[in-house]
Amino acid sequence: MIRIALDAMGGDNAPRVEVEGVAQALRELPPGFLIQLVGRTADIEAALKAHGDVDRGRLQIVEAPDVVGMGEKPLAAVKRKPRSSIAVGLGLQKRGDSDAFLSAGNTGAVMAAATLMLRLHEGVQRAAIGTLFPTAVHPVLVLDSGANVDCDARELVGFAHLGSVYVRDVLDRPEPGVGLLNVGEEDEKGNAAAKEAHQLLKQATGIHYVGNVEGRDILAGECKKGRIDVVVCDGFVGNVVLKFYESAGRMFMGMIKQAFPDVLGRPEAKRLFKFLDYSEYGGAPLLGAKGVVIICHGSSPARAIMNAVRVAAHMVESHVDQDIGAELAGGSAAR
Amino acid sequence: MIRIALDAMGGDNAPRVEVEGVAQALRELPPGFLIQLVGRTADIEAALKAHGDVDRGRLQIVEAPDVVGMGEKPLAAVKRKPRSSIAVGLGLQKRGDSDAFLSAGNTGAVMAAATLMLRLHEGVQRAAIGTLFPTAVHPVLVLDSGANVDCDARELVGFAHLGSVYVRDVLDRPEPGVGLLNVGEEDEKGNAAAKEAHQLLKQATGIHYVGNVEGRDILAGECKKGRIDVVVCDGFVGNVVLKFYESAGRMFMGMIKQAFPDVLGRPEAKRLFKFLDYSEYGGAPLLGAKGVVIICHGSSPARAIMNAVRVAAHMVESHVDQDIGAELAGGSAAR
Repeated sequence: MIRIALDAMGGDNAPRVEVEGVAQALRELPPGFLIQLVGRTADIEAALKAHGDVDRGRLQIVEAPDVVGMGEKPLAAVKRKPRSSIAVGLGLQKRGDSDAFLSAGNTGAVMAAATLMLRLHEGVQRAAIGTLFPTAVHPVLVLDSGANVDCDARELVGFAHLGSVYVRDVLDRPEPGVGLLNVGEEDEKGNAAAKEAHQLLKQATGIHYVGNVEGRDILAGECKKGRIDVVVCDGFVGNVVLKFYESAGRMFMGMIKQAFPDVLGRPEAKRLFKFLDYSEYGGAPLLGAKGVVIICHGSSPARAIMNAVRVAAHMVESHVDQDIGAELAGGSAAR
Repeated sequence: MIRIALDAMGGDNAPRVEVEGVAQALRELPPGFLIQLVGRTADIEAALKAHGDVDRGRLQIVEAPDVVGMGEKPLAAVKRKPRSSIAVGLGLQKRGDSDAFLSAGNTGAVMAAATLMLRLHEGVQRAAIGTLFPTAVHPVLVLDSGANVDCDARELVGFAHLGSVYVRDVLDRPEPGVGLLNVGEEDEKGNAAAKEAHQLLKQATGIHYVGNVEGRDILAGECKKGRIDVVVCDGFVGNVVLKFYESAGRMFMGMIKQAFPDVLGRPEAKRLFKFLDYSEYGGAPLLGAKGVVIICHGSSPARAIMNAVRVAAHMVESHVDQDIGAELAGGSAAR
């Protein structure tokens, strides 16, 4: 049985939305997992009242009296609050009592706590958040999408390895193409970190590097030099592009609704809106720490929580964490 | 009569597309301007054969035998080719024989040549490319959108001033709101340059600074703290987001065409597709150099060239160049 710990106190509407997402997950997803709801027991029990049908046999509550606020400084908060839902949830995994941790709370705090408590795999300089961008062809993993605002060239190369293993294991694509996000495809393009990373990536083994890619290539899923499955960038540009994309989807959705109100009932419209709705895609994996950690939007609706549970279970099943450990420790990144 | 010099040799399909765009501009735009086509006379004349109806009284050809290629290193190419269409076109403006220069050629070369030949306004550290992002509310000027991949905090503050004057003069908005593109709204967010720029912008006079803005706020045209007319960022992230947005527009357009083929003939569809088509918006102003310079996509169709001519004429009429000089030299940026 896969044990998934969920930060019940994380999101903007915690614990109501988290509990609702868990209830959906237990009802709708294939069984084989149990949920460990981490947070203030009384608050969680109160929220559970709205879901009398939930399968309590696959649901545990783990008490954690403290909460890290969205505005708190991550590292300081993690150190000051060892009994926060984030620290308690990751502690379960550290002790081998849980297989995955999900949170819609303070992203920086989750990242800092995961790095401190689970530690990074050998050969990994920094953990990165990977986000799947939906495209018209195949989803493209963009990392880092927000964990690290300043990245040097070696860290960017590390992200290329992390992303490759994730796409191979979790998305079942045997030889993922990796692009470095840049302002042009030529060798001399980019800021200092991108120029150096481009040279390092050209020589790297164990990844299929297609070269510099531009903003327009992400959604194309390919460039002149080949197919793109993974796009590597620092967390500043990754975060900006991710949030921009979500807002563009909302804007286009609004425009379609206004321009063509008569088509909204059609199945094609439902498919298109589902494509544009980020809550369909669940959370984003934090890659590089020893373990399975998924970060969700603070504003995640219940459906996004449920989908994050699905992704977490699949990550555990696919052994992506072990494979990252094997690949980066003995393997190509260290060479 | 406003004199607009146009690099006939710049774009991917030069001079054919440039000449076609000029013919359209002379036919469709309000008069009051003349065009100086700069490039190889024989090639330009050959391309003009397809446009027998063009008003030759408002069209001059200025010979420039050399061309800067798209792949050439900007500064080296500008210095090595003083008779390139870029250098000759900007030379006209430098000598007072032209009021504006347009090019769909090598962006770096246009920027380098403009900086060297026209020089920067006093108080300007670097020129920046400003791109208008269409949104559901009002177009938002994003700068720098590609000229400078590494920017320090003072340069970002300079972009805030340049963008404010442009939006005030050319878009007629009296008090433009300026946001600094960042990964969160809080003071402590961002990389080193963004953190410092945020503090400097909070103290800056002569601009209406609304604060840090996120990727999602650009298309919203506002954030919690107010309306956003100008978004300031370094040219790396600006270029990535710009190209990403263009590709997102194309992707959504393709999805609508596939999902709802029966609506494509409607006026609402035409309006929506026009909104999503970047060639409707003309070129992007290079701000900070003394003069009027507009940079177009290398792949600009004739319609984009025509729209860039329209924007250039409006920039000259609105005296944005003089106002930038006055504001930054005596004014707020120097304080």
